Amino acid sequence: MDSFFKVTTLTRVLEYRSLFSPLEEQTIDLADAVNRVFYQDLVAGDDLPPFSRSTMDGFAVRAASTFGASEASPAFLTVKGEVPMGRVPNVAVGPGEAARIPTGGMLPKGADAVVMIEYAEILDEGTIEVTRSVAPGAHVVQSGEDFQKGEVVLAAGRRLRAQELGLLAALGFGRVRVFRQPVVGIVSTGDEVVPIDETPGPGRIRDVNTYTLTGQVRDAGGLPVSWGIVPDRYDSLKDALTSALEGSDMVLISGGSSVGTRDYTLQVFSDLPDAEILVHGMTISPGKPTILARIGEKPVWGLPGHVVSAMVVFTAVVRPFLEHIAGLGEAFASDALRIPAQMSRNVSSAQGRVEFIRVRLRQAGGRLLAEPVLGKSGLINTMVRADGLVAVGMDEEGLDKGEAVVVIPL
Amino acid sequence: MDSFFKVTTLTRVLEYRSLFSPLEEQTIDLADAVNRVFYQDLVAGDDLPPFSRSTMDGFAVRAASTFGASEASPAFLTVKGEVPMGRVPNVAVGPGEAARIPTGGMLPKGADAVVMIEYAEILDEGTIEVTRSVAPGAHVVQSGEDFQKGEVVLAAGRRLRAQELGLLAALGFGRVRVFRQPVVGIVSTGDEVVPIDETPGPGRIRDVNTYTLTGQVRDAGGLPVSWGIVPDRYDSLKDALTSALEGSDMVLISGGSSVGTRDYTLQVFSDLPDAEILVHGMTISPGKPTILARIGEKPVWGLPGHVVSAMVVFTAVVRPFLEHIAGLGEAFASDALRIPAQMSRNVSSAQGRVEFIRVRLRQAGGRLLAEPVLGKSGLINTMVRADGLVAVGMDEEGLDKGEAVVVIPL
Repeated sequence: MDSFFKVTTLTRVLEYRSLFSPLEEQTIDLADAVNRVFYQDLVAGDDLPPFSRSTMDGFAVRAASTFGASEASPAFLTVKGEVPMGRVPNVAVGPGEAARIPTGGMLPKGADAVVMIEYAEILDEGTIEVTRSVAPGAHVVQSGEDFQKGEVVLAAGRRLRAQELGLLAALGFGRVRVFRQPVVGIVSTGDEVVPIDETPGPGRIRDVNTYTLTGQVRDAGGLPVSWGIVPDRYDSLKDALTSALEGSDMVLISGGSSVGTRDYTLQVFSDLPDAEILVHGMTISPGKPTILARIGEKPVWGLPGHVVSAMVVFTAVVRPFLEHIAGLGEAFASDALRIPAQMSRNVSSAQGRVEFIRVRLRQAGGRLLAEPVLGKSGLINTMVRADGLVAVGMDEEGLDKGEAVVVIPL
Repeated sequence: MDSFFKVTTLTRVLEYRSLFSPLEEQTIDLADAVNRVFYQDLVAGDDLPPFSRSTMDGFAVRAASTFGASEASPAFLTVKGEVPMGRVPNVAVGPGEAARIPTGGMLPKGADAVVMIEYAEILDEGTIEVTRSVAPGAHVVQSGEDFQKGEVVLAAGRRLRAQELGLLAALGFGRVRVFRQPVVGIVSTGDEVVPIDETPGPGRIRDVNTYTLTGQVRDAGGLPVSWGIVPDRYDSLKDALTSALEGSDMVLISGGSSVGTRDYTLQVFSDLPDAEILVHGMTISPGKPTILARIGEKPVWGLPGHVVSAMVVFTAVVRPFLEHIAGLGEAFASDALRIPAQMSRNVSSAQGRVEFIRVRLRQAGGRLLAEPVLGKSGLINTMVRADGLVAVGMDEEGLDKGEAVVVIPL
């Protein structure tokens, strides 16, 4: 077994995403679609809104009938009738005429603007006095102004937010086509690891990584499935991984950061049918002893055992792979959300690797400061205290106080 | 019915949160707890980690035995044995002695540091040559270094992230106490509103708000329940609201932004038992015609009918109320996440109200620019194109190009 580290750069690791395909589609109810990934470009079949309508309570008019109107010299208009809510108006508006219209009401024939009720005084049942001129289109949403028939209104790969649900509702889609959510198998390894409901004997430790990874997978839009704790034995790991692979789209093996364990993890990966080791060691810190294999069509990760290292590796590389197979477009991926901040103090970093520094965010005099959270990578409390991560590049020796950085939220 | 607008400021509206109580607790599985709100301060019952352990593969030593060691003048140490993974070591380390230790292994008696395997050359089975000195505590996580017994490790009101799940796992909590999620009833009103699977006839419009509000409620950690579309009639609204109130912790009535509808919405609110109208009009734009009532112990909102207005009001005021009754602490509320950016251009705004401007975010030369998305408040596409909102204060006449702003993500 070759345990020599053929260390891969972060950039190169991320390029391996192209070896894996996004999942297939499924059709779900619109009300359940928030945060799901849209499957196929949507072209508007109708104009939206389908008719021109008023955005205010007031009077539908021809704008020209109000030109020059003021408090001193109001325009007098004849009220021809009222636009009923939710129905086609049976009045038309000519020059010098008006029709009462509610918010949302359909603009009657002949009208091109709405005078707000505040600027229209009712003199008698048939006449109003308008004290302000309106421009054509004032207080009116034109038919097709939101989207026009034939326009691409929603791109594939978009994570659907509340407003996209609204858009789909407006276009009449009660069911929508989305990518299936990736199922991610999580296998915890290590003779020293005990289930969390047991009191760890001396030298043993509770299974933390299953829970941090469960949370991270769920947060990234995946469906986590725990395969429990597997002892440090070749056969046990091989059996567990084989089972996990059957029911998952991606598998995370956590633990095995000591050299011996890493070696047989690698051996198990290699011995499975149609397997290829892509990455064995990465130039990031923490998280160097990370393994990535392609087994069949699926990515399988060997993550470091330290909880902070595993969380950082998840954020920096596993999550982008998960989002890729979830169908998320680049413009909508989690790396699109980065919070600009300034370092609160100097931080040193070794060159030759990308170092991820835990930071907490703090407002100070209108600036957002990123304050390093110091502590060893085995300490979960440093992550609890952190709001995000800052990456220090391969060729940088550190970050200066006041330097502009972008924070990856945690 | 008094339809005079007793307009309330945004600040005052938010203060009304104190009239409502957070919900009761429930106990759930840790694996399901991501994004749930922690119910009660947690005090560590044990030291974490429970024992001092190595963070590297190497040799456990007394640091003093390596002082002065270098390539030129190595320290020679006697190897007394090996620390097995997951068990209490049965070796002790004295001056001039070492024990082989794996990553995660328990530090043996007498040792206070670990020499990395890279700096220890094995001369024979019983002797190593150490070529670098280590300080006491090097490559060791001390017992209690993460959290000490008796310390408050997790505060009530925290939204649980992956790392908090990890912390709870490390402390042995397979079940956790969280606030119950608020159930939010959504009632859509308006004679012109049709279900989304129907083709709207002339002058009619599909029920968009139910879906945007469903997405926003879910995104804010609530459980949305739709009560369908109710016609513009006093009795219908009263019946629907009465039913919705029974099964919900908060109710949102959307629509009714025209004066007539607003009036009878207000009338229905007032006529229910133990009701108090708290807000009837707010100094925000869009979203002025917003109604807030306390009915029994529950907040009930009358939201504007325009989709953008309703979404803005949800973000600016409804969400803070929802988070309050969900038990979310102030430090962990959504207003804690604001993205600093600079305006890409001048924007004017009327004084006397807080105006929420839709913006999209764009990287330009290391700066994050907030670019106004223009368009009427009835147009859902302006929200689809937006990444967030920027609030322009009551006393501001607008924002200047280059001005620093904070963006509320959408």
